[in-house]
Amino acid sequence: MSASPPAWTIAAQSPSRLGTVDVVTRFLKEQRCYITELNSFDDRLVERFFIRAEFRPEDDDFDVDAFSDAFASRADEFDMTFELTPPEARMPVVIMVSKADHCLNDLLYRYRIGQLPMDIRAVVSNHPDLEPLVAWHDLPYYHFPITPHTKAEQEAQVWRVIEETGAELVILARYMQVLSSDMCHRLAGRAINIHHSLLPGFKGAKPYHQAYEKGVKLVGATAHYINDDLDEGPIITQRVEAVSHADYPEDLVAKGRDVERLTLARAVSHHIERRVFLHAQRTVVFDR
Amino acid sequence: MSASPPAWTIAAQSPSRLGTVDVVTRFLKEQRCYITELNSFDDRLVERFFIRAEFRPEDDDFDVDAFSDAFASRADEFDMTFELTPPEARMPVVIMVSKADHCLNDLLYRYRIGQLPMDIRAVVSNHPDLEPLVAWHDLPYYHFPITPHTKAEQEAQVWRVIEETGAELVILARYMQVLSSDMCHRLAGRAINIHHSLLPGFKGAKPYHQAYEKGVKLVGATAHYINDDLDEGPIITQRVEAVSHADYPEDLVAKGRDVERLTLARAVSHHIERRVFLHAQRTVVFDR
Amino acid sequence: MSASPPAWTIAAQSPSRLGTVDVVTRFLKEQRCYITELNSFDDRLVERFFIRAEFRPEDDDFDVDAFSDAFASRADEFDMTFELTPPEARMPVVIMVSKADHCLNDLLYRYRIGQLPMDIRAVVSNHPDLEPLVAWHDLPYYHFPITPHTKAEQEAQVWRVIEETGAELVILARYMQVLSSDMCHRLAGRAINIHHSLLPGFKGAKPYHQAYEKGVKLVGATAHYINDDLDEGPIITQRVEAVSHADYPEDLVAKGRDVERLTLARAVSHHIERRVFLHAQRTVVFDR
Amino acid sequence: MSASPPAWTIAAQSPSRLGTVDVVTRFLKEQRCYITELNSFDDRLVERFFIRAEFRPEDDDFDVDAFSDAFASRADEFDMTFELTPPEARMPVVIMVSKADHCLNDLLYRYRIGQLPMDIRAVVSNHPDLEPLVAWHDLPYYHFPITPHTKAEQEAQVWRVIEETGAELVILARYMQVLSSDMCHRLAGRAINIHHSLLPGFKGAKPYHQAYEKGVKLVGATAHYINDDLDEGPIITQRVEAVSHADYPEDLVAKGRDVERLTLARAVSHHIERRVFLHAQRTVVFDR
Repeated sequence: MSASPPAWTIAAQSPSRLGTVDVVTRFLKEQRCYITELNSFDDRLVERFFIRAEFRPEDDDFDVDAFSDAFASRADEFDMTFELTPPEARMPVVIMVSKADHCLNDLLYRYRIGQLPMDIRAVVSNHPDLEPLVAWHDLPYYHFPITPHTKAEQEAQVWRVIEETGAELVILARYMQVLSSDMCHRLAGRAINIHHSLLPGFKGAKPYHQAYEKGVKLVGATAHYINDDLDEGPIITQRVEAVSHADYPEDLVAKGRDVERLTLARAVSHHIERRVFLHAQRTVVFDR
Repeated sequence: MSASPPAWTIAAQSPSRLGTVDVVTRFLKEQRCYITELNSFDDRLVERFFIRAEFRPEDDDFDVDAFSDAFASRADEFDMTFELTPPEARMPVVIMVSKADHCLNDLLYRYRIGQLPMDIRAVVSNHPDLEPLVAWHDLPYYHFPITPHTKAEQEAQVWRVIEETGAELVILARYMQVLSSDMCHRLAGRAINIHHSLLPGFKGAKPYHQAYEKGVKLVGATAHYINDDLDEGPIITQRVEAVSHADYPEDLVAKGRDVERLTLARAVSHHIERRVFLHAQRTVVFDR
Repeated sequence: MSASPPAWTIAAQSPSRLGTVDVVTRFLKEQRCYITELNSFDDRLVERFFIRAEFRPEDDDFDVDAFSDAFASRADEFDMTFELTPPEARMPVVIMVSKADHCLNDLLYRYRIGQLPMDIRAVVSNHPDLEPLVAWHDLPYYHFPITPHTKAEQEAQVWRVIEETGAELVILARYMQVLSSDMCHRLAGRAINIHHSLLPGFKGAKPYHQAYEKGVKLVGATAHYINDDLDEGPIITQRVEAVSHADYPEDLVAKGRDVERLTLARAVSHHIERRVFLHAQRTVVFDR
Repeated sequence: MSASPPAWTIAAQSPSRLGTVDVVTRFLKEQRCYITELNSFDDRLVERFFIRAEFRPEDDDFDVDAFSDAFASRADEFDMTFELTPPEARMPVVIMVSKADHCLNDLLYRYRIGQLPMDIRAVVSNHPDLEPLVAWHDLPYYHFPITPHTKAEQEAQVWRVIEETGAELVILARYMQVLSSDMCHRLAGRAINIHHSLLPGFKGAKPYHQAYEKGVKLVGATAHYINDDLDEGPIITQRVEAVSHADYPEDLVAKGRDVERLTLARAVSHHIERRVFLHAQRTVVFDR
């Protein structure tokens, strides 16, 4: 959630091989780009390499297309995928909600003050309740009710919004519906969910009630990419809050709201700043 | 920030003396009130006793006036001051702001969903900026500009709002003006300020810039009762966030927003739930 | 882990019923005992009441037996069980370990400087490795090897040490053996184990390796009373530490050491100070 | 406090200039060294660049002298200072203590199990108290008493030990003496002190007593490089612990022990792993 002047960002990953750093950093030097922040990590167990650099071109006539094309051919040699992000980029986003608005309210606030460089294209819900809040922010709200018989149809409606708005990220801000396997595949790596427990503890429904039953002394939240296996997607960030015997399930729900929204906001921020790398079932997160 | 069914609360303090607990608990028993949560503490260095009980009358015809009168005479013997709060009580509150709205937005959200049992009677500001947000919540907004020459006059306007609305608590949610000594006295024990540093470190202006200069690795916020001595009032709660060399002053400001609003909300919640006791320059807080 | 002058402590629990607080506090008043710290809680879901008071007799000739006898008859009316602990009491303890010594070293240090008011009567292990450390503290060390065939016999040896030393608490400080169901029953409510995960996540063996596989961003430890169902006993305290993609399983093990020893030490401290109440599968902990 | 297989480390800093990353990473590639972890940061306010890389030579006949000489000439062009550290390196260390042993005990434990790759050459104290603990670890203990009249002489003795043992790092593990300005200069950048407060709050003596007076709700510790200005040296790491009204000064002292030793151990670990860069009054710490 940086307030520093935005820089260009390049984020890349590839199989491990001598020269993976050099192919990026030498190119930046040749292109007269000054690196202001750099992180790389090699996961020796899966032999995979991850790198992220923030940089600023020294010359005024920096040509992004030329840069991108030239780098692509070098990256190719290393089977390297990369993403180049200009400063001031705002990621197009669709937010999905049900009735609870603590995460939505938080995201809208950060959006409003410019703390999250995203462009909210739409808020989609299976309930009408949160329309006034969204309307006050001058954002479109789509109410697509869902019943056991209309799930496929409703998902098609949702998908149309995602496609038509050009959303690159879908945020499930306490959207209380299970997405179909097909929808999960389409959104792989670009849909973040907030689950209200420290996964893998308390998967599934009513995690705070499960936590109460077990008498745990910490509750938490997990922001993760969705995948086919419910509540099992790659974890981006987690956060906890201390609780006590005096917290009944409804107190845990109340205490959990702050944890959930902070966890989700942080994951979204990291994703937008290209600090998160997804590989198999795990993530690499270059936090700071 | 309890979501449990509200109970009656009695909060009291007195000089230390044998029987201070008993005078409260025996009375509750006699009045057929069941104590669901109880905390007491005796500060041996200043010889002062503090107690807070949540209770529920067993009988339907609980008579609060009779209860209060009867207890008053017993408390008297112990020089004990006390406050009795019914369930469902909502504390009348005035919030003061300048231009930054992260704390205000947070308080309004908690108010909206009923997480803070308060009745916001007015929002007062020396700037017009936050009126739309307040108006959306259907709350009155008073814009009282301030100049070096009109400070006394402006404070009189503010005071009139506090008096006329019957506010029992004034929340300085990043109100960037120093209150006069007179105003501080009038508001003693019922005005909570949020300072954006871990007091007593970084008093005064621009604490995040001071923190940056010192190269600290944690920033924080302090919610405290105001008093005459700026940034020196009794502390209610404090909270921190880790920061790094990569956080420039503007990043600290951004990271600090979450810490500030969580710290302020918690202090306000504790105050409203009568968990905070003020004695001399320190507080007793029966957190849970 | 208080360093304040120790006081008498009374800890009690009973079914919920009008007068549960009063029966304790009125008695203390009558006995001319001044209450310095008091906590009570009523669990409305199971209708059970818990109370803990620290107090100091005002008179020099305080007679503990008379006090205890007199209170017993009153407590009886409320089906109340209670425990009375004198200041300066040191709980007799047996510590069980295998080869890892981070928890043991920590407990011995706190014991050495008097931070944990316990009297370590013996350290028991299924390995000889930690004898020198224990010997340096002038404490007896029993090495009882264990094989699949000698488990019952070994447990009998352990039990004899517990009985003969009069241990009231058994601390499983990374004792890597599963206790028999019989042993668990005998030690119910007086044996604390440290599990190196945030239970109920990652039960069983190699929790840090499980955590690595899942890619969690927090690891933790859980101190709990043992019961028949492995890793399922009532939780006393939990603690976490942030981890990252760069932490391989062996790094999690290393980072976990601090979390484990702090968590265990806190649970032991709470137990010795009679801050923990056990009821069914949950605990009430009057922390401060 | 990594438990991962140690790698070679190169740590460097220089004025900001195009090519600062490339001069390091290209060289590593040319030398057939695979980078497993890399961090760089450019401080735009002071225009200074910092980089740290962990790497593993691909060839068995890696020649460190050749590597070092060759890199030196390139670094020179960039006014870059650098340090090259082999895997399995153990930093020679002298620890200074007075009477309190919580930090010493912690450091010795980590040393014993190999968690801190250091070679403790001596423990120096102005008191004899901690000799047995040190002797049990088979380490030399020097008792150099100090009086107002013998301060200079005592420091000379200490200095001799530092010199003769070849210590590269001096750890002030609650050494309760103020070092002379001269000594501070000699140890600039290679002596770490633990101060028992969140600097710059509560400088000087008895910080926990100051904290109690102010009624703060958090206490903490600060590990910093010493410099001429007491309690003002560049901060490496800080940590906090929640406290309450029930904590008297002696309780804060007790609670603070854990915070102090964890904070100091982390700072020492970071220093030894060359994760800390010192520039002017601030540090850059590449934590993970």
